[in-house]
Amino acid sequence: MTYEQQSELSTNMNNMSTTIKIGMIGFSLQNTWAIKTHYPAIQQLSSNFQITALFNESLDESLQTIRQLKLENATAFPSLESFILSSNIDMILVAIHDKNYDPLIAELVANVQQLKFIPNHNQIKYIFLDWPLNCSIEQVEYLVQETAKLDIQTVTSLQGRKSPYVMRAKDLIAEGSIGEINSIEIAGNGAWYGYERPIKSPSYLYDMSNGKDLVSNAFAHTIDVVQYITQSHFKQLNSMIFNNIPKQELIDDNGNRTGEFVEKKAPDHLLFQGKLIKGNVPVSCSFKGGKPTKKFTKNLVIDIHGTRGDIKLEGDAGFIEMSNLVLYYSGMKVEDITTAENVEVKTPGAYDAGKEVMEFYHLRNYNALLGNIFRLYQSIIDVHLHQLKLQSQQKFAYQGFQKEGYPTLTDGLVLYRLIQSVFKSNLLGSTLDVSNLQ
Amino acid sequence: MTYEQQSELSTNMNNMSTTIKIGMIGFSLQNTWAIKTHYPAIQQLSSNFQITALFNESLDESLQTIRQLKLENATAFPSLESFILSSNIDMILVAIHDKNYDPLIAELVANVQQLKFIPNHNQIKYIFLDWPLNCSIEQVEYLVQETAKLDIQTVTSLQGRKSPYVMRAKDLIAEGSIGEINSIEIAGNGAWYGYERPIKSPSYLYDMSNGKDLVSNAFAHTIDVVQYITQSHFKQLNSMIFNNIPKQELIDDNGNRTGEFVEKKAPDHLLFQGKLIKGNVPVSCSFKGGKPTKKFTKNLVIDIHGTRGDIKLEGDAGFIEMSNLVLYYSGMKVEDITTAENVEVKTPGAYDAGKEVMEFYHLRNYNALLGNIFRLYQSIIDVHLHQLKLQSQQKFAYQGFQKEGYPTLTDGLVLYRLIQSVFKSNLLGSTLDVSNLQ
Repeated sequence: MTYEQQSELSTNMNNMSTTIKIGMIGFSLQNTWAIKTHYPAIQQLSSNFQITALFNESLDESLQTIRQLKLENATAFPSLESFILSSNIDMILVAIHDKNYDPLIAELVANVQQLKFIPNHNQIKYIFLDWPLNCSIEQVEYLVQETAKLDIQTVTSLQGRKSPYVMRAKDLIAEGSIGEINSIEIAGNGAWYGYERPIKSPSYLYDMSNGKDLVSNAFAHTIDVVQYITQSHFKQLNSMIFNNIPKQELIDDNGNRTGEFVEKKAPDHLLFQGKLIKGNVPVSCSFKGGKPTKKFTKNLVIDIHGTRGDIKLEGDAGFIEMSNLVLYYSGMKVEDITTAENVEVKTPGAYDAGKEVMEFYHLRNYNALLGNIFRLYQSIIDVHLHQLKLQSQQKFAYQGFQKEGYPTLTDGLVLYRLIQSVFKSNLLGSTLDVSNLQ
Repeated sequence: MTYEQQSELSTNMNNMSTTIKIGMIGFSLQNTWAIKTHYPAIQQLSSNFQITALFNESLDESLQTIRQLKLENATAFPSLESFILSSNIDMILVAIHDKNYDPLIAELVANVQQLKFIPNHNQIKYIFLDWPLNCSIEQVEYLVQETAKLDIQTVTSLQGRKSPYVMRAKDLIAEGSIGEINSIEIAGNGAWYGYERPIKSPSYLYDMSNGKDLVSNAFAHTIDVVQYITQSHFKQLNSMIFNNIPKQELIDDNGNRTGEFVEKKAPDHLLFQGKLIKGNVPVSCSFKGGKPTKKFTKNLVIDIHGTRGDIKLEGDAGFIEMSNLVLYYSGMKVEDITTAENVEVKTPGAYDAGKEVMEFYHLRNYNALLGNIFRLYQSIIDVHLHQLKLQSQQKFAYQGFQKEGYPTLTDGLVLYRLIQSVFKSNLLGSTLDVSNLQ
């Protein structure tokens, strides 16, 4: 399996002058997330993407990164202003979760309007912010609004939507292969948030104030995927958030306990339940930290039950956006339904066991951590080339529930509002109406 | 496996005059529930229980039942009054869920005070009402209060507590074999409430007004067992109740669809989540009707995760009180914990994989439908004989979370209040404090 499977256009159009020049904020050798995901994805799509500018807290960090990674076309900039003024950037990419960068992102957002007044800078076409977003919901709203005016496309890394398993599940459901969905159960284990913490693990993961917690991160990716697969948002939700593990023991690089304990402010459990707008489907979700391994169930399980079949997605870790998964399907395929349509119309539960099929879908060597991000970049270039080809000004507003495209900040904004409602429901002790978040 | 395993006293004391004479209300050949459960349990414990009186809507029904079942010691009575006046009843048993009997039960409750004024009737020692209770919460409260004054014991059939799997799970947890519980996930499928209805299935199961619905019945039994296993009640809960299947197709005796549809008022899905008082444990529960079979998960799954191990209970049907189950256990046994106590105290997650054990517990031919009820009767006679032996007036108030004993109406009342809170939470759209239901 190559990651290219899904690309329709890029292979044919490599000779066009269609390279997107990327200016990265917060990309250095210390940023292990970007080093393992964004960077190799960009490298593998080098005929379409090129890193041309770097801006980090320290100029030395940028210079060292350029030298070590041999980024021949990249320039290091000493300030955000000079970085933007470089006139060699098509896409501004923020792929950092360190809170030291929050003021920078705030500055970028606050000044986004000025991008069009910078001489020769009508070329900035994309702003890509990693999920979880390093800014307030008001900043995201502002960014969505202003980038639309400036004709700048936005991207966010809700890359779970690009997982081949997620896309397969979405297709099966869209084809009607499990009939009408009548319930969904989700259980996830985001082991980071449990009793132990690797000594090298970045502390921002455990600090509630940063919004990179179990709810905003692992759960958000998962619930985004569930909405994407089912093609429905929620209309009602209730949540309960727990911090039952206020202290974690540090674990050294060899996996041994150090006896040293550190405070954990971020939650270690989320209970979430809600109703989907489409079909009034009950969705139950238990997302935990705690003991890293469950013995009798996988650390990520999504069970989708329908009137005519079931889909199960399983993974070894409660991070759907970066876990390799397994998809199980059992049901009656759409081809066979039409022949029994009368029965079907009358009884959604009508089921001919003789026509039941089962499917097992697993890509043994799929590197999901990189692969889903790779496919996200691929979809950017597909839309980019498609738009060039059409010679149109038509703007890609958001992925919504389309198969094509990539998640934008509009998608991110809708999810951000959902996550805020999850926190609010817990605080208020209420079931909330969330049907108007879109 | 015989059902007697648990009995400590009954076998030795069969020669005492310790037979409990049972007067049954609503027991006839048409009452398939009682015929399959109460009746054979009583028969198998015939040295301790004897059916001496029957009262049904029609005298003929009682006479026919006595004749066909050869109930040599039983008399049929034409009225509730004459039935009670028979002076040959130690235990009044209501084992019927037909709503025609509701007024009768109301009459019994209303007149319970008078039992002691009936000449020669200080002998009534037990009132046994089947769960779900056929009366209002106020009636149960009244009954609990008045029977206490009269020194009459109450019993209710929360027989899930007597399931050998449930008791094994409770023991493992009490021993500390999974450490501290940190989350519980429950998924049940009460197939009755789905798209189809067997034509012979009693309509009271689908009529909301009767309180014998998915919530009051299948869910109530399950959550009672979860509370019993964990030895904790809930402190907070939220629920969402669905009726997504307002019409069911009738299925004939051969399993064929009839094309005839009937209205369903009872819910077909419950989402429930809450926090246990003990340990602030998050509990997630999705209880469904709908398609009767899930392909990739059992119809009843209870996952209990602890800091040192996991327990999984699985069954083929979402009715824990009458399904045969399988218990899986993985963890570190209490014997091995003491040797690592220092580590343990410091880190609840501390875990020595070398000491991990696994256990699989299944009684292949266990008839759970009968077996759990049988074990309930067995516990009645155990307590009964124990009390006789002690020559004391000490009263068995409720089982609570003890291993010994049987669920009383006090247990039933606490559960009834929880179920009422579940309905209330759904109606109000609120998370409710339920820490004061006991």
